Amino acid sequence: MSENCIFCQIIRKEASASIIYEDAQVLAFLSNRPVNKGHTLVVPKKHYANIYEIPEEEAAYLFKVTKRVAHAVKNAMNSEGIRIAQNNGWAAGQVIFHLHLHVIPLMPTEGFIHGKAFHDHTNPRNAEALEQDAEKIKKYI
Amino acid sequence: MSENCIFCQIIRKEASASIIYEDAQVLAFLSNRPVNKGHTLVVPKKHYANIYEIPEEEAAYLFKVTKRVAHAVKNAMNSEGIRIAQNNGWAAGQVIFHLHLHVIPLMPTEGFIHGKAFHDHTNPRNAEALEQDAEKIKKYI
Repeated sequence: MSENCIFCQIIRKEASASIIYEDAQVLAFLSNRPVNKGHTLVVPKKHYANIYEIPEEEAAYLFKVTKRVAHAVKNAMNSEGIRIAQNNGWAAGQVIFHLHLHVIPLMPTEGFIHGKAFHDHTNPRNAEALEQDAEKIKKYI
Repeated sequence: MSENCIFCQIIRKEASASIIYEDAQVLAFLSNRPVNKGHTLVVPKKHYANIYEIPEEEAAYLFKVTKRVAHAVKNAMNSEGIRIAQNNGWAAGQVIFHLHLHVIPLMPTEGFIHGKAFHDHTNPRNAEALEQDAEKIKKYI
């Protein structure tokens, strides 16, 4: 746990998020700055800054859940493509230093528009819209 | 196994690649169109087109190896950042339809240059250069 980490706050339910999956080790919730509708973040409940810090078995389990989330986001959002991405370090575009995997639905042509990939938040969603997206995705998980 | 799949050919050693890691289930080799020096692809030996087709346990193991590769690439290439990415479908920029994870070393500022992420192959490496990169990375795996 890290006191000032926003993801730890979401995990402790001190900050709100539209959660689509939760178990003892992992939480998945919608990005509040989605690249596209349905953009989901999958995080370990324990605070690890990056892929180097998390133990192997926990990383393996995290990816297993991420695969489930990828199926659900694809089906719920009817998306042509899904990009799974995990950035380590500022140089890789990591902004929140709590390990997370992005599950990003992409429509045709967007896979090659790299600005869509991480920081071109062209589809802002308010809290209500995010909750509606989460309800859809939860049906497929 | 898929007859015409280039990754299956690499796995069967019918096509050449600079391999950095191999076990019974997984192969890791350098991209021959690297985004940056050390750009590695991690693939299951069984042919699955994407994340949806691979069984959960095999996906989990694949990510465990990917984590090992990420450490090795970071240390060997002395890279500030590491992006792990896995694209599903044309719409997400998938070009080879054999499931693979990218491990991409990124230098400061590149994480936000999205063109660097997948298809801006600005650092071509010939076979000899790739072999030299592979030798370096293998020392850290």
